[in-house]
Amino acid sequence: MITLIENAAIIPMTKSDYYFRGNIVIEDGKIRSTGNESAEADERIDASAMIALPSFVNAHTHLSMVLMRNYKDTCENLQDWLSEIFPIEDKLNDEDIYQASRLGAAELIESGCTVFADMYFHAWNTVKAIKEAGIRGIIGQTFMSDASDAEYRIEEIAPRILEAIGDDDSFRLDAAVHAVYTSTPDCYERAAAWAKERGVRMHTHLAETRKEVEDCIREYGKTPAALLDGIGIFSSVPTYVAHGVFSTENDMEILRRNNVSVVHNPASNMKLASGIAPVKQYREMGINVALGTDGASSNNNLSMIKEMNTAALLQTVANMTPSAARPYDIIAMATINGAKALGLDDRIGTIEEGKEADIVLINTDDSNMTPLNDPFSAVVFSADRKNIDTVFSKGRKLLEKGKLLTIDKEEAVRKTNERWEDILRR
Amino acid sequence: MITLIENAAIIPMTKSDYYFRGNIVIEDGKIRSTGNESAEADERIDASAMIALPSFVNAHTHLSMVLMRNYKDTCENLQDWLSEIFPIEDKLNDEDIYQASRLGAAELIESGCTVFADMYFHAWNTVKAIKEAGIRGIIGQTFMSDASDAEYRIEEIAPRILEAIGDDDSFRLDAAVHAVYTSTPDCYERAAAWAKERGVRMHTHLAETRKEVEDCIREYGKTPAALLDGIGIFSSVPTYVAHGVFSTENDMEILRRNNVSVVHNPASNMKLASGIAPVKQYREMGINVALGTDGASSNNNLSMIKEMNTAALLQTVANMTPSAARPYDIIAMATINGAKALGLDDRIGTIEEGKEADIVLINTDDSNMTPLNDPFSAVVFSADRKNIDTVFSKGRKLLEKGKLLTIDKEEAVRKTNERWEDILRR
Repeated sequence: MITLIENAAIIPMTKSDYYFRGNIVIEDGKIRSTGNESAEADERIDASAMIALPSFVNAHTHLSMVLMRNYKDTCENLQDWLSEIFPIEDKLNDEDIYQASRLGAAELIESGCTVFADMYFHAWNTVKAIKEAGIRGIIGQTFMSDASDAEYRIEEIAPRILEAIGDDDSFRLDAAVHAVYTSTPDCYERAAAWAKERGVRMHTHLAETRKEVEDCIREYGKTPAALLDGIGIFSSVPTYVAHGVFSTENDMEILRRNNVSVVHNPASNMKLASGIAPVKQYREMGINVALGTDGASSNNNLSMIKEMNTAALLQTVANMTPSAARPYDIIAMATINGAKALGLDDRIGTIEEGKEADIVLINTDDSNMTPLNDPFSAVVFSADRKNIDTVFSKGRKLLEKGKLLTIDKEEAVRKTNERWEDILRR
Repeated sequence: MITLIENAAIIPMTKSDYYFRGNIVIEDGKIRSTGNESAEADERIDASAMIALPSFVNAHTHLSMVLMRNYKDTCENLQDWLSEIFPIEDKLNDEDIYQASRLGAAELIESGCTVFADMYFHAWNTVKAIKEAGIRGIIGQTFMSDASDAEYRIEEIAPRILEAIGDDDSFRLDAAVHAVYTSTPDCYERAAAWAKERGVRMHTHLAETRKEVEDCIREYGKTPAALLDGIGIFSSVPTYVAHGVFSTENDMEILRRNNVSVVHNPASNMKLASGIAPVKQYREMGINVALGTDGASSNNNLSMIKEMNTAALLQTVANMTPSAARPYDIIAMATINGAKALGLDDRIGTIEEGKEADIVLINTDDSNMTPLNDPFSAVVFSADRKNIDTVFSKGRKLLEKGKLLTIDKEEAVRKTNERWEDILRR
């Protein structure tokens, strides 16, 4: 199967501020060439009004939390909100998670994203939904207690998720320890040992709120980053941490030294009144900063195209200089940096010969994209979900003229609503 | 002509956090009833999957600046950016403004807005484009120098705009003085006298940047608000000021005492690294705060649905509490408060019997709006332009299933691109 994308404004994300007009040839799921090749193709796409980008990597989310979208979101802070959310989560079952994951996948694809790092429960159902949708999932085996609970999850839960994944290399099961305020150091240690043994990564929340950091210092005498560093987590497994809103210079040095990636979630941090992450300082230190939406219940959407806009505006005003968040750098956070955080940068994250074809085409023939002038600024500051025209994952077309091809959206909406009404009655 | 909107989730914006499910009957451009009436209608719209809101009021923009969208937007601050923009503006002609205004109108309608307050040049062309598009324009007679230049504009330019407007009550020509750093006190005085004589309002930029305030204090010994108050501007004509990023307590008291409305432009203030307006304090003092996108060249879009999201997130994190920006309050800024700022609240801004039918229907049967849970949060935190389904202005349908009915978008995009290429060659 050969697909020819013709005459696109291609932003390959291989070097800063670089783009060119040309063709992309996709063969058997991989990028065969970019440039002038005009192959005999099974499908030709006229992309003369399109910007072609690597599709977005949502490096931190809780996919099935679409169920709690706009639910009790009037809380004063993260802790109050979690006390509303945790009792709901105790009621969730397999079918809830399957339907919610399917809806979440629809939302990801419609906003140009084909790869996400998840941290949630009953994840075998998410794997099933995501396989059907045709995207990739770095699934988290969630840990959220102590070492003996971790043992239980490794023995009883992880095998179910691994069985659902099978030999599909669009998935990986990482160790996702919730946070230092819900999980003990020995829980982190057990999870890290399990991740190391399996050659996978660690995903955790870190320094999301001031309270988390203060409580951690009170309990352990250390910041969350120093605590996890002290027990050897970062040196034993490649780690990506969500939020990183409150980091001392020493914390940043720990993250840098251990090649820990920080996943910035600006909308969630703003909405929950958590704070503003020091993205400029992270980047200046050479720390890899990726981008995520967090769950739809604290955002309240999963749109990476919107998240880029929020990130760029927030970092500009927080640092009082546009140089803190140049459009190219923001797009990098949403593509190649996300791929690096998840250890997928040899396969995706750029549009280059040999990489797998995860590509989004953004329509510029629209009222909000005219005139185009600077395609980097246009993607970050002007574009929205309505401009997301075509999405490929592994060369397979999942979205065409803004319409989903692998998910019946009407059904996904209806069934998710049915599940949610049922959950509230339980 | 009778239109029946059936079974919508109606947010009338008549009282805080209130919504109900019901019908809206539109007759001859006005709202005949809201509630249970099921009239014989020329058109029936099944709105069971829709939220009905008053359409948005963009209370501060420069519509034709869509031409400079994403153009040279890498500047460090407002002053540097204006030095790139002003030479372009000197080259603009009637046809440029007409085509740009038509494209801008398309963008406004597609994002749910039917009323805008404009400040730009060659505005008779904007009037022509907006009449064709079918929305409303509070047009600004721009002043940007001294009293003798103001006199020239009143004699030579205003009549052309007034002639274009004719007796169409969808328009009004306000006095739009650019700012204290481009216009002298006697320019403000002449413009205010002209506005007072004609019974219209004053629109101006105020305290947008720290530099503006510091320069004003250096030159006049007063802040911009105190300067304009001192020469009697606010007491002589109802005024709405854009930005208000830097206001002292005394400035706020001046604005409150004179019933001056502040138009908040969060995306522009963030993007230009101007700062964060004290919206919470304004609101606590009882100052009317409206919302605007500013021009597309400093945003870089005209979407009020996106602007609400940005405003809510920014005010929450800036004040470290969600109570600073409740969804209802944010929607009020984008609807009834905008109508109040422009003196149109007796005609639009709420969905009430007797008001003119400026209404937007937002589709909730979408991946990003499921489950709905709280419709106020859903509008502010989840919705985007793709959810904007139907838009009415004065009872006339301008958008249907997201498609423009009064503007040929393809042509507007093509012609705007042609004009812009021509401008760059001049």
